[in-house]
Amino acid sequence: MSSITVFKGSASGKVVQHKATTILEPQGKQVLIEVTHSGICGTDEHYRKQDMVLGHEGVGIIRAVGPSVKTLKKGDRVGWGYCHGSCGSCRECDRGQQLYCDERQLYGSTNLDQGSFSTHAMWDDEFVFGIPDAISSEEAAPLMCAGAAVYSGLKSGNIGWNSRVGILGFGGLGHLALQFAAKMGCEVVVLSHSSSKEKDARSLGASEFHTLSSIDSDKFKPVDCLLLSGAQQPDWNKVVPLVRRGGSIMAMTVDMSELNVPYMLLVMNAIAIRGSLPTPPVLHREMLDFAAFHGIRPIVQSFPFTEEGINEALERLGKGEIRYRAVVARA
Amino acid sequence: MSSITVFKGSASGKVVQHKATTILEPQGKQVLIEVTHSGICGTDEHYRKQDMVLGHEGVGIIRAVGPSVKTLKKGDRVGWGYCHGSCGSCRECDRGQQLYCDERQLYGSTNLDQGSFSTHAMWDDEFVFGIPDAISSEEAAPLMCAGAAVYSGLKSGNIGWNSRVGILGFGGLGHLALQFAAKMGCEVVVLSHSSSKEKDARSLGASEFHTLSSIDSDKFKPVDCLLLSGAQQPDWNKVVPLVRRGGSIMAMTVDMSELNVPYMLLVMNAIAIRGSLPTPPVLHREMLDFAAFHGIRPIVQSFPFTEEGINEALERLGKGEIRYRAVVARA
Repeated sequence: MSSITVFKGSASGKVVQHKATTILEPQGKQVLIEVTHSGICGTDEHYRKQDMVLGHEGVGIIRAVGPSVKTLKKGDRVGWGYCHGSCGSCRECDRGQQLYCDERQLYGSTNLDQGSFSTHAMWDDEFVFGIPDAISSEEAAPLMCAGAAVYSGLKSGNIGWNSRVGILGFGGLGHLALQFAAKMGCEVVVLSHSSSKEKDARSLGASEFHTLSSIDSDKFKPVDCLLLSGAQQPDWNKVVPLVRRGGSIMAMTVDMSELNVPYMLLVMNAIAIRGSLPTPPVLHREMLDFAAFHGIRPIVQSFPFTEEGINEALERLGKGEIRYRAVVARA
Repeated sequence: MSSITVFKGSASGKVVQHKATTILEPQGKQVLIEVTHSGICGTDEHYRKQDMVLGHEGVGIIRAVGPSVKTLKKGDRVGWGYCHGSCGSCRECDRGQQLYCDERQLYGSTNLDQGSFSTHAMWDDEFVFGIPDAISSEEAAPLMCAGAAVYSGLKSGNIGWNSRVGILGFGGLGHLALQFAAKMGCEVVVLSHSSSKEKDARSLGASEFHTLSSIDSDKFKPVDCLLLSGAQQPDWNKVVPLVRRGGSIMAMTVDMSELNVPYMLLVMNAIAIRGSLPTPPVLHREMLDFAAFHGIRPIVQSFPFTEEGINEALERLGKGEIRYRAVVARA
């Protein structure tokens, strides 16, 4: 074990294998992880033309720890997600909001030489999470970003067991948001572009299912919180009236276009549109425990952990063919 | 006392006096108020071409009460604001959010035959508020809508005594928001179009004052919550970066144009834009008590309670000449 293999984006959009980097000994609070599984997220697809190591839903086994690591040890099964580090001593870090830190290290903008499409990765222990025994490694991978994103959105959306939650976009994020919200005690309504997903949605706990083209806002009982978990911004004129007065729309969809919404529709109904990021460490651990306790399981489609496997998974993700999250797994 | 005089909007935009309506005896939970003062709000200006009785910052004396009224009595000094009624038995009413009720009665869309530009008005007691002795009637009037609007915004914006609050637009609403937030214990930053208001802002409790043209978001310490209390929507590209990650922008400005904002700026910073309405009854009473206890006083410019007085006040409001709230008062 003297070098690591990584899979990077390239100008053509094809992910390419590289064998180059020498493995270093973990220093300080670092842990060295041998990657066994990685989820594949829409964000990976967005970065596939970048010269960077891709992947941020990593799962694997700790092979070595730095001298200052206290709670993790060699052999532990762990995972990591969208955020890799923060300053550790600002107001936001102090209050457990590391993703709001000015020095936050997010996938795609820092640590471009590391990712979960790799044989190994080395991260600070604060952003590496032990996986509960009840969750398989394959199922743990999609929780690291998709699970974290929706759990964070439900938390920031002030969801309680008395809430009626709408989930707009039933894919990698949406099928997890549904399971979390249902287990939180909520009435959950799935809004999808396609009626083909109704059976899955109902079997995972949806009490209502609507296709966006058929929905009539005059007859729809408004939700307290609407999670945007689809692949692009919705038609705001159509979705704002689906939210009750005083309610919230949690925006986690990545979409580079401008947000255009009738301003007075928000004011007169006291509705919020709030951007939402994945979980900080404290919530990430809580999310994993909650998923383990309630048996929340991503539905995964497995691909080989090879150049071919990754490219095929990304192709199918781009075409909207994945049900519901792609994972690459070592044999 | 057999008829009431009202002042209505007209097609030309001039407010016109009418003497016509016969005073009825209050029924059920109604109270009959003889109006002594009315604040003048930007919303009155928006409706001045409508065939409706204008005014919704009313203060006066109760002259008669219906048989079911329990807590108010003849001779009480009271006021009312933007909301006049609700169904009283839905989920929103049950939890004290009457302004979210489907049957809410808001100024400008219901009860068009009544307003505070009038000698009398008759409302259900739930939406009529006793005025603490420490607050003069002239000063109470602007609290009925402007005060209620900003108090509600601060509440929904999750302001605490450890918050840094920004107030964008320092007029009728802004000069009250500043006083409330400062008395709540907050660090308050006023953002104004004009440097001419700095002295007033500092004397009312602002710890910082910036003009919008001079502000540099890289050097500005971001606020936890930004209240939009100006006359139109801001340049969103410029103001979103003034808010800390995870923070909120409370939108109470009335502006018919569309909201256009860079979507990813909200997502990557977990920022919310939330529409905000004035207070429901429970918060309205709390707001008046808080203002009385802390000596929060609107700065008013007084006009005669006549056709001429009202029109002059509206003209000057339209030109941005009012410092900081116009009130019409009976001699």
